Amino acid sequence: MVDWPNRRFVEMIGCEHPIVQAPMANAGGADLCIASIEGGALGSLPCAMLTSDQMREQVAEVRSRVAGPLNLNFFCHRMPEQADDTAWRALLQPYYEEFGLETPPPPPLRLPFDEAACAVVEQEKPEVVSFHFGLPEQPLLERVRATGALGLATATTVQEARWLAGRGVDAIIAQGFEAGGHTGRFLGGDRAEAIGLFALLPQIVDAVSVPVIAAGGIADGRGIAAAFMLGASAVQMGTAYLSCPESLLPDGARAVLASRPTLMTNIYSGGLARAVRGRLIDEIGPIRTEAPPYPMGGGASGPLFRTALQRGDFDFMPMLAGQAAPLGAALPAAELTRKLAADALAILAGRA
Amino acid sequence: MVDWPNRRFVEMIGCEHPIVQAPMANAGGADLCIASIEGGALGSLPCAMLTSDQMREQVAEVRSRVAGPLNLNFFCHRMPEQADDTAWRALLQPYYEEFGLETPPPPPLRLPFDEAACAVVEQEKPEVVSFHFGLPEQPLLERVRATGALGLATATTVQEARWLAGRGVDAIIAQGFEAGGHTGRFLGGDRAEAIGLFALLPQIVDAVSVPVIAAGGIADGRGIAAAFMLGASAVQMGTAYLSCPESLLPDGARAVLASRPTLMTNIYSGGLARAVRGRLIDEIGPIRTEAPPYPMGGGASGPLFRTALQRGDFDFMPMLAGQAAPLGAALPAAELTRKLAADALAILAGRA
Repeated sequence: MVDWPNRRFVEMIGCEHPIVQAPMANAGGADLCIASIEGGALGSLPCAMLTSDQMREQVAEVRSRVAGPLNLNFFCHRMPEQADDTAWRALLQPYYEEFGLETPPPPPLRLPFDEAACAVVEQEKPEVVSFHFGLPEQPLLERVRATGALGLATATTVQEARWLAGRGVDAIIAQGFEAGGHTGRFLGGDRAEAIGLFALLPQIVDAVSVPVIAAGGIADGRGIAAAFMLGASAVQMGTAYLSCPESLLPDGARAVLASRPTLMTNIYSGGLARAVRGRLIDEIGPIRTEAPPYPMGGGASGPLFRTALQRGDFDFMPMLAGQAAPLGAALPAAELTRKLAADALAILAGRA
Repeated sequence: MVDWPNRRFVEMIGCEHPIVQAPMANAGGADLCIASIEGGALGSLPCAMLTSDQMREQVAEVRSRVAGPLNLNFFCHRMPEQADDTAWRALLQPYYEEFGLETPPPPPLRLPFDEAACAVVEQEKPEVVSFHFGLPEQPLLERVRATGALGLATATTVQEARWLAGRGVDAIIAQGFEAGGHTGRFLGGDRAEAIGLFALLPQIVDAVSVPVIAAGGIADGRGIAAAFMLGASAVQMGTAYLSCPESLLPDGARAVLASRPTLMTNIYSGGLARAVRGRLIDEIGPIRTEAPPYPMGGGASGPLFRTALQRGDFDFMPMLAGQAAPLGAALPAAELTRKLAADALAILAGRA
């Protein structure tokens, strides 16, 4: 065995390795995407917090520096009409006082895929577009398809995978409970029912005919090999890339990532996301009903995290990361990508 | 590749396949254990709810019907001195009334490994003894060792795995969040930090030198193959064996297992356990602070579940099962064991 047991993803996408560098807003930009593509992965640009101009600039930078398939990632949540965050701001007020912050203008929030974003896709023609929290409305989805882009979307349950497959996505990202960042759950939502990747992946593989990309808890070659045994055609890895020099996290943050347990919290954005513990979670708890719905919760908590980051106080905020953070190797992203693929192939071939 | 990539467990234990049939009180007895051994697994007898005489009888039955290594499983929790379950009984009172039940004598509770259980081990000399919730006190542990039995114990975190390895266990069961039944967590215990098997297994493999047995979310050959890629020397499977005709579950229960989501609940025993949803969880919620600590919570809820079971009302109670329940095949346990091993070997060899 000298090749991947399943080549459906690499043949569909045209990348060298069946690895998707996960889009991570605030943590990875064009540099990480470019280096991942250089290493042979499908590189991703997280677009949910970018303006149309910023998207175009980042795509142009990627295209000028590397050849290879590019994924633009968007969120498909519905923006709440209005969100009363009075109680949430009151809860956080002592931290505003500690940090000497006035109540600042709200920070940029993650926006759903819309007319403007669709226009960027039509102009820039990425090879791949991926969606989180379901899919955009049908007319927008058809416009994306008309560009020739392949469409990926995230499922956290078998029901969601069937829903996505029925709407014609080209591949499904099976996101296990272990994954860092926002859980993509969009149908139903009792968080107590969250499913681990070991159980979720084969059930989704059995339920749909499109290729399945395994995500959550995979940070080394062993995890990639295991995902293929469970029927995956590729893996999506985020936390493993957080320790690359191309990530946007400052150095001090990486030591925190590898040494602290993670849990699901809504204090980051109002939506459920896996993050490492930090002082704020220790003091107010990981789940607060006062936080307005996703993404509005970030309006009051975001400025605190930004200030803490600027001060090098990495302890304060919940940093988004998955359960495999301690497994990550701190290598440049191109080298990391090549090593991940080589290690997985060696394990699959029984040579490691 | 025509053999397991890692033979440490089968060589240590002397069983044919690197599969441990998980001990499951109330769900599997001597018949399931015997059939599993016939199929080539390490068979287990759950002893935490048995009297010494019952243990001896079951061991004698196993020994008279099959040759092969046998595992006796014990719990190592501390019994709470006293538990006030007034509020818990009040919460459940409407169900007592609906079922027309008087307040009955308390049902048998899971007891920790003690002097009497140790005497049974010394007399019966099982090849393997496994412990849940840590280990027994040192003098009892030394007596078990003196019998020549190999000792297994469950870890749900890297910290617990190191703790167990430091006390000389012969192999560690890495129990992922996906696993059915009681989580074995015994050091610390914020349940929000529970770790999925994909992330937990390689971290435990890296942390200890003894063989690691993967548990949680594995119900077919794919899962076994994946566990080996992550460094496991064996797997422990429970939910997969629930659908065997040798299990103690009535037929109607199996359909419920495959069709309902699972979640962590404390209403079964007071301790955290993964179970399928049922009417009682839907009505009172999965986690109730009124329930006294493990195992005392079962004093008031157990009689209700027993009554529901007798009436064939499988919907009422939380049935302990893992997240891979929908993957199980309903085969006799010996045949299931052989199929699991054959499927995994074929996948590992690239032939499936």
